[in-house]
Amino acid sequence: MSETVLFDYWRSSASYRVRIALNILGQAYRPVSVDLLAKAQKSPEHLARNPQGLVPVLDIDGHAFTQSLAIIEYLDETRHAGFLPSDPLGRQRVRQLSFAIAMEIHAVCNTGVIAELMRLVPNGEAARDAWMRKFIGDGMAAFEKLLDHPATGAFCHGDNPTMADICLVPQVYNARRWNVDISGLKRLLGISARCEGLEAFAKAHPDRAKG
Amino acid sequence: MSETVLFDYWRSSASYRVRIALNILGQAYRPVSVDLLAKAQKSPEHLARNPQGLVPVLDIDGHAFTQSLAIIEYLDETRHAGFLPSDPLGRQRVRQLSFAIAMEIHAVCNTGVIAELMRLVPNGEAARDAWMRKFIGDGMAAFEKLLDHPATGAFCHGDNPTMADICLVPQVYNARRWNVDISGLKRLLGISARCEGLEAFAKAHPDRAKG
Repeated sequence: MSETVLFDYWRSSASYRVRIALNILGQAYRPVSVDLLAKAQKSPEHLARNPQGLVPVLDIDGHAFTQSLAIIEYLDETRHAGFLPSDPLGRQRVRQLSFAIAMEIHAVCNTGVIAELMRLVPNGEAARDAWMRKFIGDGMAAFEKLLDHPATGAFCHGDNPTMADICLVPQVYNARRWNVDISGLKRLLGISARCEGLEAFAKAHPDRAKG
Repeated sequence: MSETVLFDYWRSSASYRVRIALNILGQAYRPVSVDLLAKAQKSPEHLARNPQGLVPVLDIDGHAFTQSLAIIEYLDETRHAGFLPSDPLGRQRVRQLSFAIAMEIHAVCNTGVIAELMRLVPNGEAARDAWMRKFIGDGMAAFEKLLDHPATGAFCHGDNPTMADICLVPQVYNARRWNVDISGLKRLLGISARCEGLEAFAKAHPDRAKG
């Protein structure tokens, strides 16, 4: 049995997702920090692991996997974790919710994107803050509306955490980090708080991953 | 049996993906254009369909679905289209390839993101072109490296089109639209050309969807 290794970074949302998923599964792993501030993700060593130059990379079952949501789907298919429901309608909804965060919010506010934005604009920090307010703010407001649905339960879909909750919690962390006011989004915040109360989520928090 | 309706826009990459998938399935549908240039995606009528204010929305099987990749997964699960392979390893790889385009290239170069960029910078068009060159250029170069893999065949994964090819072809269209030089990416271009030769892909092309 090969060792399970997670190449991650404490503040990376995508890494945070995979840490939550591994914790829910009770899957032990060895974390290896790839320091994004030192651009270690663009080192030849890391590019050999992932030509995209991104974290996380998960070494598991003798393979190296990238893309957090593809990793979570793989873990669900091989470990039957319930990250996705069993019915196609529910699976469509959980993926839809997950992508509403991963594509329209997180991908747009990722480190490399913000670095390019700040390179192109004269007043970098102000532009970055406006960018975060817009894409996190608008994206979370749309997510709140998506939760106005009969299938929403104690969690984003039903009464157990799914991939959608695994995407939500790191995004709420990011909203707080960038001082984006999401205080009016009661449903989303209630679900996030419920998740944050679970040890699998709490143990994955950046402050605890920082080591 | 309810009518299948696709709310799309001819130039939207995400719509283009769903058109290809429906064509591969031989699933007839009625297209309804949501004019992004006229901001029709932000109209109350469209926001009622999709609170994210995005296309496509697919009405099928009596439900309205959003998020192109979640739609394609749903179609695969309910129609067994082969958009994803049957083994977990292969499924991980096809999702990884798809996300490498959908998250790191397409989401970052989407209409709303570019509009915000152009609002923040003094020289909008130059910034937009630099942005496209960077994210499409770097992203496609990374994708080319991901194709250097034993599972790559006549298509991105094996010898039949999968979700990865459905993501690739609209992104190649976009690279050409924005004059991004991808001429050195021979493997990716070979696969894209092979796809473009298939009627399901050709019929979905923006120029034919424009009507």
